[in-house]
Amino acid sequence: MKYISVLGSTGSIGRQTLDIVREHKDKLKVTALAAGSNIELLEEQIREFKPGLVCVYDEEKARQLKLRIGDLSVSIVAGMDGLVACGTEPAADTVVTAVVGMIGIRPTIEAIKAGKNIALANKETLVTAGHIIMPLVKEKGILLLPVDSEHSAIFQSLNGEDKRRVSKIILTASGGPFRGRKLPDLYKVRPEDALAHPNWAMGNKITIDSATMVNKGLEVMEAAWLFDISIEQIQVLVHPQSIIHSMVEYIDGSIIAQMGMPDMRLPIQYALLYPDRERLESGKKLDFLKVRQLTFEEPDMETFYGLKLGIEAGRIGGSMPTVYNAANEWAVAAFLKGKIGFMDIAAIIEASMRQHKPIANPTLEQILNTEQETYDFIKGYTRSV
Amino acid sequence: MKYISVLGSTGSIGRQTLDIVREHKDKLKVTALAAGSNIELLEEQIREFKPGLVCVYDEEKARQLKLRIGDLSVSIVAGMDGLVACGTEPAADTVVTAVVGMIGIRPTIEAIKAGKNIALANKETLVTAGHIIMPLVKEKGILLLPVDSEHSAIFQSLNGEDKRRVSKIILTASGGPFRGRKLPDLYKVRPEDALAHPNWAMGNKITIDSATMVNKGLEVMEAAWLFDISIEQIQVLVHPQSIIHSMVEYIDGSIIAQMGMPDMRLPIQYALLYPDRERLESGKKLDFLKVRQLTFEEPDMETFYGLKLGIEAGRIGGSMPTVYNAANEWAVAAFLKGKIGFMDIAAIIEASMRQHKPIANPTLEQILNTEQETYDFIKGYTRSV
Repeated sequence: MKYISVLGSTGSIGRQTLDIVREHKDKLKVTALAAGSNIELLEEQIREFKPGLVCVYDEEKARQLKLRIGDLSVSIVAGMDGLVACGTEPAADTVVTAVVGMIGIRPTIEAIKAGKNIALANKETLVTAGHIIMPLVKEKGILLLPVDSEHSAIFQSLNGEDKRRVSKIILTASGGPFRGRKLPDLYKVRPEDALAHPNWAMGNKITIDSATMVNKGLEVMEAAWLFDISIEQIQVLVHPQSIIHSMVEYIDGSIIAQMGMPDMRLPIQYALLYPDRERLESGKKLDFLKVRQLTFEEPDMETFYGLKLGIEAGRIGGSMPTVYNAANEWAVAAFLKGKIGFMDIAAIIEASMRQHKPIANPTLEQILNTEQETYDFIKGYTRSV
Repeated sequence: MKYISVLGSTGSIGRQTLDIVREHKDKLKVTALAAGSNIELLEEQIREFKPGLVCVYDEEKARQLKLRIGDLSVSIVAGMDGLVACGTEPAADTVVTAVVGMIGIRPTIEAIKAGKNIALANKETLVTAGHIIMPLVKEKGILLLPVDSEHSAIFQSLNGEDKRRVSKIILTASGGPFRGRKLPDLYKVRPEDALAHPNWAMGNKITIDSATMVNKGLEVMEAAWLFDISIEQIQVLVHPQSIIHSMVEYIDGSIIAQMGMPDMRLPIQYALLYPDRERLESGKKLDFLKVRQLTFEEPDMETFYGLKLGIEAGRIGGSMPTVYNAANEWAVAAFLKGKIGFMDIAAIIEASMRQHKPIANPTLEQILNTEQETYDFIKGYTRSV
């Protein structure tokens, strides 16, 4: 039996993680759950999975939840301390870090320090603090298993092969809902257009990131950290069918690829059961006679220049990826509220990056300060334009 | 340094094996070479690679070669005993079995008994004697590394994963030069049409086998033995670009595929250097922006019913695969000499299979007898029709 703690249990990845637990009750048991504020769903999850510890980030909501489930034997905690408590829950073997945003960094670090394996679904952790996380992973000898479909594909395609034999990573991208469209056309895009992803069912933030291809910029940086490879050795390849989830090219010219139906539960299950594999009864098998063709294109980095900026941020390194990520978080939230246009997202990221003086190897405090400074800059910037 | 013995050094696979040795002189050294009768090329190979032992299967040609290279310190042997001597040459670590036909079985068995690793390029060995070979491989604890691009792809896609996690093998097929064509049309095919393979540069026998898809029938049987999987768990998938060399589907729905340019030197090098990988300087890298699309089709087993018969022979097992293979060898040779038509190849295989009473677990002697009986049957059969 593997004991797992799910940080971000009411989000898209969190809910699909619990789907996997439900399918493999003989192998997986939930010991802790953490959510932001959706206590209605959290209550259902508590009643079904019976964790010993639950965190609600919002303190008022935590109090409300306590009243609602007075009859159950569960400890309810709140805030960042509560989140860290869930990440370090003594019985947990694996912590699923599925919270969105930079809020995930501290509990991830504390979970690693406590010797937990990490099923990593929080991109910001490696993007902004890879230089802190990766040495810690090595020092503690824990497994850092990617939950992202692309990174899981790379992990599976590497399958223990020596890193020195890798010549490049081919990170595939669906191209999002606006693939093939050009700039003047994209200024008019509304949130509801951008939320219609052709292949994947995901949360709102990541769906917009997929439409701008900022998602792929973050993934390039994440892959570089996870697989200890340079940004230059990562090729982004547009593959609209999202069947090949990513590939590894070896020095002899051989390419290993991982494929499957676009279903996030597949990489989640892989990370939870690793190194084992089990049937995913409710999953669909890939049928090449139905798919019939797989196509490939070069990414259009002029139109989707959020991707280009991501690669640039990765090359610069230090605190620059934090600026890229924070500016994007701010801009996506503003876009979803209808306050800015679609193409303003990349423009805001670019302006934020241009004004920032990068710090090499920033501490966690410096990373969080950089995030705040970026928000402060954008507030002034968006008032002035 | 790895010491290798090449059985069939003047054929297509043999010559490409020596290309790989030439590229990796610091890692590979030839200790023995064996060829059928092409002593001109063999002499060149001896002068370049300086093996200590050489076999010419044809005894008269062996005598001629001795006269030609009187000045070099090399032992020249002949016949089946000579072939076995090359397969068991004391210094050899790995024996490349690249002879064509059932002649390859005995030297392969003797090489395994002598504890050599095998780079297997002789299909007949596993197709006809898999039940003898595989237990021997296990007993001796040697490595049996496939050289065929499809089987190498499967081996690489498995990469040590537990067999119980495999749900099926997807064996890709280019479909050959006549893909998409239908029966009445194929009766008129001439040898020169069939020898024009769209993707692969191979020997004549295997190129015709690719045109009839009998090649894929043999590969299904070979894969079943190599990877200890049932014939039912092997899907043949037509993929005309020959970029995906084959795939493995796991029980969770994840598919791992191996891809590359169609270049036999890639699987040869992989088998020779395994578990290492090295650059193949003269090889071309796969560029998805040039390939742009990969397509998939169902094999047309009504037109190419040699494939259907191969799957049937594999299901029946015992001595039936020997009949399938021997009938095909006879028919391809007759077709290349212009004695029979293209569609007669499958017809002769079918007639041979229908008249045969299969022997379960045949001994090597019974296998060789079955081969001879099949030839005898076909001689009578072709005179009568």
